[in-house]
Amino acid sequence: MTKTIDLNADMGESFGSWQKGDDSALLDIVTSANIACGFHAGDWDVMAATMQKAVEKGVNIGAHPGFPDLQGFGRQRMNFSHASLGNLVRYQIGAAQAMARAVGGEVKHLKLHGALANMCAEDEAMAKACYEAALSVAPDLIIMVIAGTAQQRAAQALNCKFACEIFADRAYNDDATLVDRKQPGAVIHDPDAAADRVVQMVKAGAIIAASGQNIPTAIDTICLHGDTPGAIEIAKSVRTALVNEAIKIVPLSK
Amino acid sequence: MTKTIDLNADMGESFGSWQKGDDSALLDIVTSANIACGFHAGDWDVMAATMQKAVEKGVNIGAHPGFPDLQGFGRQRMNFSHASLGNLVRYQIGAAQAMARAVGGEVKHLKLHGALANMCAEDEAMAKACYEAALSVAPDLIIMVIAGTAQQRAAQALNCKFACEIFADRAYNDDATLVDRKQPGAVIHDPDAAADRVVQMVKAGAIIAASGQNIPTAIDTICLHGDTPGAIEIAKSVRTALVNEAIKIVPLSK
Amino acid sequence: MTKTIDLNADMGESFGSWQKGDDSALLDIVTSANIACGFHAGDWDVMAATMQKAVEKGVNIGAHPGFPDLQGFGRQRMNFSHASLGNLVRYQIGAAQAMARAVGGEVKHLKLHGALANMCAEDEAMAKACYEAALSVAPDLIIMVIAGTAQQRAAQALNCKFACEIFADRAYNDDATLVDRKQPGAVIHDPDAAADRVVQMVKAGAIIAASGQNIPTAIDTICLHGDTPGAIEIAKSVRTALVNEAIKIVPLSK
Amino acid sequence: MTKTIDLNADMGESFGSWQKGDDSALLDIVTSANIACGFHAGDWDVMAATMQKAVEKGVNIGAHPGFPDLQGFGRQRMNFSHASLGNLVRYQIGAAQAMARAVGGEVKHLKLHGALANMCAEDEAMAKACYEAALSVAPDLIIMVIAGTAQQRAAQALNCKFACEIFADRAYNDDATLVDRKQPGAVIHDPDAAADRVVQMVKAGAIIAASGQNIPTAIDTICLHGDTPGAIEIAKSVRTALVNEAIKIVPLSK
Repeated sequence: MTKTIDLNADMGESFGSWQKGDDSALLDIVTSANIACGFHAGDWDVMAATMQKAVEKGVNIGAHPGFPDLQGFGRQRMNFSHASLGNLVRYQIGAAQAMARAVGGEVKHLKLHGALANMCAEDEAMAKACYEAALSVAPDLIIMVIAGTAQQRAAQALNCKFACEIFADRAYNDDATLVDRKQPGAVIHDPDAAADRVVQMVKAGAIIAASGQNIPTAIDTICLHGDTPGAIEIAKSVRTALVNEAIKIVPLSK
Repeated sequence: MTKTIDLNADMGESFGSWQKGDDSALLDIVTSANIACGFHAGDWDVMAATMQKAVEKGVNIGAHPGFPDLQGFGRQRMNFSHASLGNLVRYQIGAAQAMARAVGGEVKHLKLHGALANMCAEDEAMAKACYEAALSVAPDLIIMVIAGTAQQRAAQALNCKFACEIFADRAYNDDATLVDRKQPGAVIHDPDAAADRVVQMVKAGAIIAASGQNIPTAIDTICLHGDTPGAIEIAKSVRTALVNEAIKIVPLSK
Repeated sequence: MTKTIDLNADMGESFGSWQKGDDSALLDIVTSANIACGFHAGDWDVMAATMQKAVEKGVNIGAHPGFPDLQGFGRQRMNFSHASLGNLVRYQIGAAQAMARAVGGEVKHLKLHGALANMCAEDEAMAKACYEAALSVAPDLIIMVIAGTAQQRAAQALNCKFACEIFADRAYNDDATLVDRKQPGAVIHDPDAAADRVVQMVKAGAIIAASGQNIPTAIDTICLHGDTPGAIEIAKSVRTALVNEAIKIVPLSK
Repeated sequence: MTKTIDLNADMGESFGSWQKGDDSALLDIVTSANIACGFHAGDWDVMAATMQKAVEKGVNIGAHPGFPDLQGFGRQRMNFSHASLGNLVRYQIGAAQAMARAVGGEVKHLKLHGALANMCAEDEAMAKACYEAALSVAPDLIIMVIAGTAQQRAAQALNCKFACEIFADRAYNDDATLVDRKQPGAVIHDPDAAADRVVQMVKAGAIIAASGQNIPTAIDTICLHGDTPGAIEIAKSVRTALVNEAIKIVPLSK
């Protein structure tokens, strides 16, 4: 049986007159676009333009909600009650759904952003609150979870559609958490190294930790980046390597 | 044939820890709640709580989008391209739809807020841009328009469902525009006077100007307020007077 | 020797069209006004109007900076580097200084708000970062610190002018921290009880814990509130009781 | 007598994680930096970092206040009362003063931004309201005005220190207004053409309109840009040409 994989990237992270990332380049590489919803990045016009381009390129649209923290790009940890978190998530998904509908698209998946994602990767109840809120608005949504974290456990407990994500350019600890960015080798900058590693992980059906240890996991989607120097090269390299190994690049919902 | 009328009021205009208006009292009086969508007022929690109460009281939910002007409560005139206006409106309606769905409700109508409403009352093309955007997201939406203005002409040109609104507490000029707030008598403060006038206008099927002149118009909904001293008394008085005249208070969509 | 005491309250916490608190009533009671600086509450017009009134009533003006969290009223804990914290504090103090100067006033003291204050009450290094930043802008500023907390230790270490504050309406634990709001008796609602307790504490030169234990401390200022039901009654009662005991109500800088 | 000229540019227009402009390059070219104050661009950290660099390079610091319009970069025309405008300007100048003081600098001049500047170039009373507010906070401030506009007339009427500014890269109409950006030739993209024109204007003591007509005016400072492709080349070219003509590049306050 042919292995398939989805490639995803965060997009629509410009705001007003400020540009961020190379969405056009990424849209030629990925199959799923996680589109910022106006709270940590993105605005009504950025969202519309990004979704329009995604539809034109046949890339799946996902809602990418974050904390209401524009200055900190949603990387500020914030404590909301689960009820408020649910409202925060619903608001942003709803906005994304309307913007998508207007360009002939549809919000197919959800991926949490920044500190909201990190906190939910550690706190299953918090993740569940977010995902339940999302599903109350869009029952068919695919929840993109960071493989091996509380995000995945929350999605499993909810018995909903979900997709397990690994990172192309981040080293892993033996417990499937990411190596701290301050450690040497935490971020992989070499396109070939990143591509080789992703291919190995997809083939093995496992996260390969920096130690060499294999941590078996479902791998449904690879997270790529477009907003750092060299990121597009890594993204291209990963895609090419997967294709060369006859792993089919297919959007999640197919 | 029995005359029917809808009563509407703006609600959900609190923000964070700041309260505004007496939504609970209004929800016992009106049949349509125009709920702020987070740009000029309201936030994710305020929206959710207000919609929850509206659903419990059987009051119709409407989206009440405004300009991104929290400090000015959306009363600051702003110039956006029609494309941006469309995105602004879509974003807010989408957010409202999701919040409504989560509490078992549905966004039934649209009413523009503040400076956005005032500019669209003067500029048919601008109104059309907003309404088309709204309908692209929610084709069955009832567009609430200020009777006799460019808003009404825009809705007519779009051949969509719309409802004509008059104000319970504002005096009219002979051309159906509102008397400037700075003029004496522009705002009606007496509950009985407001009620009498509304009853007369509904019965006559006409706006009755301050001069006494009748301006024939469809009247589908009466705009009431809840955020000024005495507003709730006016609202109650108008409702009672209509009921006493056997005019049935019915939500727009019925 | 006559005992003297300052009475302070947070003010200028309205925003745009949203009102909060009863600043006019408070300005007849207190000697120091802690004025919100536009990040968690207040805006340019609210600041100007509040400072104008403070100057007219001879009440000292203080800067009351908080986190950039309007929706959460600055009660959201946020993590900034010490360098960023310093910039946050400087920005808000500078704005306050200019607004004060324009109405013939002067920023005499600093009091941190909400989560920023709470975090600094626990973290001496964080408090020091904030206070050093403040003093780099205004070397003669009086730092208002919560008595017995890391705030006080930070101010002492900086060898700057500071004033120790106790709360009129909050019960204390034996370690001088506040009793958790969720505990019964944490907040004192009875004006007489609050007044008696404040008088006792000022006379004793000690915080009197809920257990009855005395915790000796300098007491330079009493924190009063104006934004909750009954708050103004408590504030008046405290002032009257102090005056009746011949404790002189005097602004900090005198 | 040696002719002298100041070169100014807008800076500190990044926000949070979003970068804008090439401030480092500009700081090697200009003598006055107009630093955004957090309302239309800039934040506490961006301001501090930009001012630090300006001080290190010996470039004068100016406050560059704008409308509270982050998404529109302060280009949205907004209508505030003159009293509110004054408060808006004071708040931003005060913040800038504190940030400057902390890095050993000082706010030497004021330049209005975007739509606020454009509206004040047309409306003398509005300009006067802004400038009076600024001077109430900083009486020695040099007001940078667009030569030949209502800004200049307002500054003259106030009898304050002011500096007349012309644009290096914008064509002029015969009435000293700028040629509309939509017209061909409105923006000058050729570094040599821009430099030649600036030298001619400085030597002539006149704006040279696109028609060739000379409009005599004081010229104290040249506005350069750093946020468009080729802008740095134009800036360098202008500076070099002036130096080659023995026109001395000197900050305004000297």
